[in-house]
Amino acid sequence: MEIYCDNAATTALDPEVLNAMIPYLTNQYGNPSSSHALGQKAREAVEESRHTVASLLNASPNDIFFTSGATEANNIALSGAIRTYDVSHAVTSRLEHKAVLQTLGQYSQEGELDVSFVKIDSKGNIDFEYLENLLKFNAQSIVSLMHVNNEIGNLIDLKALSALVKYYDGILHSDTTQSIGKYRIDLQELDIDYLVGSSHKFHGPKGVGFIYINKYKKVKPLIYGGAQERGTRGGTENVAGIVGLAKALEVSYRDLEKNHNHISYLKSFFIELLTNGPIKNIRFNGESFSEDKSSYSIVNVAFPHLKHGGSLLDKLAQLEIYVSGGSACSNLTQSGSHVLKNLKVHLDRDNVRFSFSRHNTPQEIRHVVKVLNQIYQEDEGIAKSKLLEVA
Amino acid sequence: MEIYCDNAATTALDPEVLNAMIPYLTNQYGNPSSSHALGQKAREAVEESRHTVASLLNASPNDIFFTSGATEANNIALSGAIRTYDVSHAVTSRLEHKAVLQTLGQYSQEGELDVSFVKIDSKGNIDFEYLENLLKFNAQSIVSLMHVNNEIGNLIDLKALSALVKYYDGILHSDTTQSIGKYRIDLQELDIDYLVGSSHKFHGPKGVGFIYINKYKKVKPLIYGGAQERGTRGGTENVAGIVGLAKALEVSYRDLEKNHNHISYLKSFFIELLTNGPIKNIRFNGESFSEDKSSYSIVNVAFPHLKHGGSLLDKLAQLEIYVSGGSACSNLTQSGSHVLKNLKVHLDRDNVRFSFSRHNTPQEIRHVVKVLNQIYQEDEGIAKSKLLEVA
Repeated sequence: MEIYCDNAATTALDPEVLNAMIPYLTNQYGNPSSSHALGQKAREAVEESRHTVASLLNASPNDIFFTSGATEANNIALSGAIRTYDVSHAVTSRLEHKAVLQTLGQYSQEGELDVSFVKIDSKGNIDFEYLENLLKFNAQSIVSLMHVNNEIGNLIDLKALSALVKYYDGILHSDTTQSIGKYRIDLQELDIDYLVGSSHKFHGPKGVGFIYINKYKKVKPLIYGGAQERGTRGGTENVAGIVGLAKALEVSYRDLEKNHNHISYLKSFFIELLTNGPIKNIRFNGESFSEDKSSYSIVNVAFPHLKHGGSLLDKLAQLEIYVSGGSACSNLTQSGSHVLKNLKVHLDRDNVRFSFSRHNTPQEIRHVVKVLNQIYQEDEGIAKSKLLEVA
Repeated sequence: MEIYCDNAATTALDPEVLNAMIPYLTNQYGNPSSSHALGQKAREAVEESRHTVASLLNASPNDIFFTSGATEANNIALSGAIRTYDVSHAVTSRLEHKAVLQTLGQYSQEGELDVSFVKIDSKGNIDFEYLENLLKFNAQSIVSLMHVNNEIGNLIDLKALSALVKYYDGILHSDTTQSIGKYRIDLQELDIDYLVGSSHKFHGPKGVGFIYINKYKKVKPLIYGGAQERGTRGGTENVAGIVGLAKALEVSYRDLEKNHNHISYLKSFFIELLTNGPIKNIRFNGESFSEDKSSYSIVNVAFPHLKHGGSLLDKLAQLEIYVSGGSACSNLTQSGSHVLKNLKVHLDRDNVRFSFSRHNTPQEIRHVVKVLNQIYQEDEGIAKSKLLEVA
């Protein structure tokens, strides 16, 4: 039985979303920039999608720009703001996604930007007083802090953050990749300059995302070209992808409360089964144990090492439980999770991120915990028999 | 009868390509960076696609990087080379796509780059002597000249260009968006640093493209993020799109000679019917009349203005003949074709680009010419009856 609990890495495409995309992968193949009917139908699809996204976030369609994903969107925000507003100081956290850290790092390396890192505690909570001090002494900084951490699920209070940053005339960007489609965001109530979304994180297609750009903080393009996306992002629009993104966001927000309840239940059920089960000495990374300080879809567990050796992640994968050690993006580097390293706790453990979606079921959760328990029981058994051998 | 002759703007997705994509839009939704089986299947699909593209171009898979399209790829090449090699001089032509002109223009505006434009004649041919002089007096320039012009179809001799640029130690980029999938390119025989492709120009999906980067001319990323695309291009891969791109390229090159012959025939048939028909005073823009100096799929016709007024393009669109005035990308700016403006001829005419694909038929060509003839005959009739009214 294959069980997918790696929904922070990517999600299954919703069949309803694929249905919405199919016309644009078959007959409706026009280029939205073409003036004839076939082109204009594609244009309408793109603009309707923009309206859908804008209305779900309570923003103006003029402030929504489609991109190839959240990584590009994060680059547009940071690189764009730095170049457009001659920003010389950035504030971020060491727990941010590489799309943020490496973009800022590049400007820093080129001597064009000073980067300050906010203080965090061992659970990854941001020290707001420290942040305030940074802002006090560095006017017009750009602040980039993610809404939901992709590895440990920590939630930040965007409203409080925004109030603080705006008080000190800062520019505020938030990598909302893990929260778009999961938390309601009202851009009339939230004073933020840039936020981003990635379709494949909320059951839409890969290769498409968006950025919200506050009209008072427009940016120079990252990708120069035609006049697409009102000159902010060149290149023929990924029409099917854009239609899919909008449909996926619509579906997500249509059933948000229901899904929120369902996924929250799965997470607490999982934690309950796990903490009341036979595996001793379980810890949780970041705030992922907490109901209100972390995302309802992510839990990052610090398991004790298997005595008999071997990686818990590999054993789970062999038993068709698909989870993750850190972010998917960090798997490629082989250097492990920079997030957990910066928390400086539980590094001597087998850390596993479980991330749930509306497609998961309580039966699956039960099975996952059963498999975990079996792995540790067997390990205990093998360890004991080894002890006996040695004796 | 709808007839689509705007294949330089975009092409219909090949059903064989969609079939190849479907698994990655349904069950195979893994993130290629995930270490479990679902992720690894997606990884294999991406790497197989990279091998397919590389082998069709006779390049190493290590030198192929997937992007969101040709515009991004052109930006990666130019912006990347300029920043990585501290290039201070670029040579290009005023007939290039905006993705090239605006990217270079931005660096020029910021005072970081001098841009020289090669001389062109009234048919858009590049003055190679002039180019050589530019290179002689500006060592280590970056040269960006497109293989096939997207509006007038002019073909450049990439081998001769490469020999010249390399003799003067230049960096060579070619926007090959309109030629990939239509002309065989052997990267073992051609000394070029960067070339690009856009899937939707050769019956693949929109929102995905690639760049070939010569291993001796690696570039800093444009989009920073995870370690995807060996650190050169961050962001979760558009797996379905990448699979579609590779399949579309494979199909294009599988039947290349057959399609080349078919489309060439359509173009010459069209020109023959048109020039032997009743419309007087027809001219051709650029070299598009020529069989060997222009692409076999593009012809740009300078029609006389309709006496009764109105745009020929609009009349054709009303009669469901889908063609283009210039590039699709330039339609959005409302400023007309910068290519035709720079040729300084036939600006007082109704210029129409017809671009054919393997899906077009001789019957369609006959119908298009019939419709064109009717439009001009009616216009002549209306003009005559107006003259009579006045008299």
